[in-house]
Amino acid sequence: MLGPVLKLSSLFLRTLREDPADAEVASHKLLVRAGYIRRAAPGIYTWLPLGLRVLRNVEQIVREEMNRAGAQEVLFPALLPSDPYEETGRWSEYGPTLFKLKDRKEADMLLAPTHEEMFTLLVKDLYSSYKDLPLVLYQIQTKYRDEARPRAGVIRGREFVMKDAYSFDIDDAGLESSYSLMRDAYQRVFDRLGLPYAICSAVSGAMGGSRSEEFLFPCEVGEDTFVRSPGGYAANAEAVTTPALPELDYSNEPEPLVLPTPDAPTIDTLVDVANDLHPRQGRPWQAADTLKNVVVVVTQPDGERELLIIGVPGDRDVDLKRVEANLAPAEVEMATAEDLEEFPELVPGYIGPQVIGPQSSRRRAEAGAAQAMPREETSGARVADGETSASGARAGDAGTAHPALRYLLDPHVARGSSWITGANAANKHVFHLVYGRDFEADGFLEAVEVRAGDEAPDGSGPLEIARGIEIGHIFQLGRKYADALDLTVLDQNGKSRVVTMGSYGIGVSRLLAALAEANHDEKGLIWPKSVAPATVHVIATGKDDAVFDAAATITGALDDAGVEVLFDDRRRVSAGVKFADYELIGVPYAIVVGRGLKDGVVEIRDRRAGTAREVPVGEAAEHFVEVVQEGE
Amino acid sequence: MLGPVLKLSSLFLRTLREDPADAEVASHKLLVRAGYIRRAAPGIYTWLPLGLRVLRNVEQIVREEMNRAGAQEVLFPALLPSDPYEETGRWSEYGPTLFKLKDRKEADMLLAPTHEEMFTLLVKDLYSSYKDLPLVLYQIQTKYRDEARPRAGVIRGREFVMKDAYSFDIDDAGLESSYSLMRDAYQRVFDRLGLPYAICSAVSGAMGGSRSEEFLFPCEVGEDTFVRSPGGYAANAEAVTTPALPELDYSNEPEPLVLPTPDAPTIDTLVDVANDLHPRQGRPWQAADTLKNVVVVVTQPDGERELLIIGVPGDRDVDLKRVEANLAPAEVEMATAEDLEEFPELVPGYIGPQVIGPQSSRRRAEAGAAQAMPREETSGARVADGETSASGARAGDAGTAHPALRYLLDPHVARGSSWITGANAANKHVFHLVYGRDFEADGFLEAVEVRAGDEAPDGSGPLEIARGIEIGHIFQLGRKYADALDLTVLDQNGKSRVVTMGSYGIGVSRLLAALAEANHDEKGLIWPKSVAPATVHVIATGKDDAVFDAAATITGALDDAGVEVLFDDRRRVSAGVKFADYELIGVPYAIVVGRGLKDGVVEIRDRRAGTAREVPVGEAAEHFVEVVQEGE
Repeated sequence: MLGPVLKLSSLFLRTLREDPADAEVASHKLLVRAGYIRRAAPGIYTWLPLGLRVLRNVEQIVREEMNRAGAQEVLFPALLPSDPYEETGRWSEYGPTLFKLKDRKEADMLLAPTHEEMFTLLVKDLYSSYKDLPLVLYQIQTKYRDEARPRAGVIRGREFVMKDAYSFDIDDAGLESSYSLMRDAYQRVFDRLGLPYAICSAVSGAMGGSRSEEFLFPCEVGEDTFVRSPGGYAANAEAVTTPALPELDYSNEPEPLVLPTPDAPTIDTLVDVANDLHPRQGRPWQAADTLKNVVVVVTQPDGERELLIIGVPGDRDVDLKRVEANLAPAEVEMATAEDLEEFPELVPGYIGPQVIGPQSSRRRAEAGAAQAMPREETSGARVADGETSASGARAGDAGTAHPALRYLLDPHVARGSSWITGANAANKHVFHLVYGRDFEADGFLEAVEVRAGDEAPDGSGPLEIARGIEIGHIFQLGRKYADALDLTVLDQNGKSRVVTMGSYGIGVSRLLAALAEANHDEKGLIWPKSVAPATVHVIATGKDDAVFDAAATITGALDDAGVEVLFDDRRRVSAGVKFADYELIGVPYAIVVGRGLKDGVVEIRDRRAGTAREVPVGEAAEHFVEVVQEGE
Repeated sequence: MLGPVLKLSSLFLRTLREDPADAEVASHKLLVRAGYIRRAAPGIYTWLPLGLRVLRNVEQIVREEMNRAGAQEVLFPALLPSDPYEETGRWSEYGPTLFKLKDRKEADMLLAPTHEEMFTLLVKDLYSSYKDLPLVLYQIQTKYRDEARPRAGVIRGREFVMKDAYSFDIDDAGLESSYSLMRDAYQRVFDRLGLPYAICSAVSGAMGGSRSEEFLFPCEVGEDTFVRSPGGYAANAEAVTTPALPELDYSNEPEPLVLPTPDAPTIDTLVDVANDLHPRQGRPWQAADTLKNVVVVVTQPDGERELLIIGVPGDRDVDLKRVEANLAPAEVEMATAEDLEEFPELVPGYIGPQVIGPQSSRRRAEAGAAQAMPREETSGARVADGETSASGARAGDAGTAHPALRYLLDPHVARGSSWITGANAANKHVFHLVYGRDFEADGFLEAVEVRAGDEAPDGSGPLEIARGIEIGHIFQLGRKYADALDLTVLDQNGKSRVVTMGSYGIGVSRLLAALAEANHDEKGLIWPKSVAPATVHVIATGKDDAVFDAAATITGALDDAGVEVLFDDRRRVSAGVKFADYELIGVPYAIVVGRGLKDGVVEIRDRRAGTAREVPVGEAAEHFVEVVQEGE
């Protein structure tokens, strides 16, 4: 769709020479500096004329590929009644990320973060037979999420444009087929945008459902970490599963022994102290010999908070995003000193499994009597007595002195492995504590950060790690929403069948940031032709009327030929400023009308290649259309 | 923009034979029945594939005419911080119609009803010189208003699509010129849509500012009443001003006299009783001889409520919408019996000006002592004593027994006119009460419903009255927003000048309803070509494969020629159902492929004219493009 010629003398634009104070990543800086977006509130942006053009161009590519895949476009409201979201549980599961409000009649309403419920109800409203399926509906629409940390301009906003599609099928085979159709369409969208992407296995999070994949644009400033193996495995780090480790033989392992480890509250200090005071034969103690017990707070959508302790090898860090993904829809954060106050048995820096998880029940029953005693005394005495071996008691029969402390192990902790870990007393650790002999856990949780060189779960080789921006996400929802909202159709035998669904999102406004990250240099943006706000930037330099007249003539000819033009027709603005603006704004080509005009030539520049060629002024428009635009 | 061919075998559509239960007006019934919109919540609608196409077509016409007028498109968020709206006062002035919410950090936010504040701040942010002006910016965007009475489908919704434009000028002459540019653009938009309109003077309401005009589509089901005179005056009824009446000579008028008027609490009964018991010489008493005092409740945006009494000639009714428009931003409703309880001097059905407005202070000071006495006795006694003549006291020195009762007169009450009106006692009225001799008021208020035949305020003849749907509204805001938000630029002399603004709205989604009202018959919709979801509806009837093949060939040829086609390719659906759907959906033309095919012909139908012609099947597409589409 051809828009009007944009003239810089009147275009609502002010380019900025300085980076905005709140911008950290290149796309954010450049989109603001070049006058594409403007912040209205945290995570909420206004689209200026140039930005809106690019946004519409991206939307149109998404729309065309959705249509090509047979998806049908509709448009839902953003402001919705709460009822359908209450029926599926998302009203509470979404937690504080859901914008909620009340209308003048005090009815609960929300600003939709996605529209699974509404699409489900609409199909239920109109369709009733297997003959109506398969069906894919989509919309390109404004979404709302009250992100705790809106970030990097339009990369993570609180109001943003999303394409969300939903498939409806009679059975799993149909879902597979719709899913595959959308997956192909996504590849075409990103190919047309010229944006590289990795298709990564993902966890479904609050969406429910089974299989899900993310399209990640590999990019240093991305929020998502993903892994790839030489054999073709790719997954969001959150979704990587650790291959099960074989059980170790601990028959030669000594009994656990509590030893003094003064001033060793961290893994580094612990390793040093252990090697200093309690060196072992053969090789020194390493971080990998220690078991680190990390306390986190898990907050459910209904506000319920629980302390959770996670045991991981001391040479690995806990990845809170992985933990959170695996505990969705709960939110997870590190516990504070305050959180620990209620639990005197947890001695910061010296926590061990002897008093938590399955071990906590016996311990807690006894602690009931001893609770008033000072911490050092109770904990120290018990450990010195060597009572730290596993009790084998289940968490279920825990005492009632305070809530049970769940204890989960990262799967890198093998059954039968022996550890140095906290003795639950300051300045003391226990050595030779064996998992499966001396302690148990309440289960496993993928918790540590994935590391380059880790084996891919499918055995396809060592993992490489990269960061990326999530630009698309496809889900096999299955029957979660159809069940909750009772979407059924009659099958060929007249029998009622629950419909199976998929959900497919593209972050349309976020794509602009991804495109800007992928297409810029130190001078500014360099848009791909498919989405650029204009194809050519006509620049008139100098003061001669003849120059401006010639530039206007070329602009008119290009416009007539259907080329979108940005015309820098500003008088009394230096050539230097004009070139700087051209490079900042990032239109793919320029036609410079200036000093060469007296020799009958103008210059055609290629912003990306940095090249220039001279052409006769009379042939400039024609040459541009035939050679430059079509040919490249 | 050419969309994909719509095939009825797969189009997400279910036409309905029955009117929806909640629909009262034709456009609402037909848009739902023909599958254009679907209700998601009160006043909140989903756009189905056909509806979204029409919506986009309407948007595009609006966009093109805005661009042609030199306006530049941007896109603001709908979710906004409260601060700018607090600075202009609209945060409270908008009252319960404003959707408010809090984010996770408890910051106040709103869903924008219009964006004056944000545009003002954006221009302040980017521009600083008179050289940057004039400037017109616009957006086509989703708006939110929590209407007390959402109505008639998309005619009055709570979430709706609006085009809002804003002009910025250095001085009043510039504003006049921008206003006129927009006014012209509006005329082109509605002309292109084929929608008749009246340009009516309007009141500015909560928007502030001075001159304002509404574009009304004349239509029986419209919510707005407007007037036109033969001389070209047109105004929204709310904005009609009553020409000042000359003062009457009351020198021959008798003194006021309280007379018994049993069982006469209404104007009709009063006139009957007055003629029965107290007939006058010459001609009978009429409703126009009585002064009706109507009690309303005025609620300010901050929730403050006040009783207000309005005096109008007994032959006229109070028009609450006019009252409300003239008291904006307050809301106005009729007082209930409960509201009157606090004011024993107000005897329902027998209220007179003797105890209210300027008359109330003396009365109230005395009433302080008498308050415990029964109503009949105090009021009756006072009236019988003839103490009802005007005191001339100002409302300002009213007693403190209860709040003052403001009394305003409709300007149809001439100074010096004599009235029968309530004596503030049951079954009694006072005769010959003269305004300006026996009582005063606190001021005037345009309050009565405008009547056909009333004189136009500009003397251009008697008014005709009609109803309409507001489809556009243009305002000269002046400096209200620029003052509040400090939008200034430097003028030619380097002096800081407050910018003057205009605001220009088109109800885009509402336009669909207006178009549906203007273009339908008893069978269904009849879209104008400029906005129709498709230009031609190809209908294959019968069971022969040859028919479906020929229809598919014609569809393909039309699609190739750039004609938007809706193809009814459904098997096992009767011709009757297909024709009914065609007539309901309202695509302007049909090409019917059916029984005629064996004779080598198909039929081209014109939905609006109801005509049909046969053409050879091989020439159908070409004929349609050349003769029908281009020629008509």
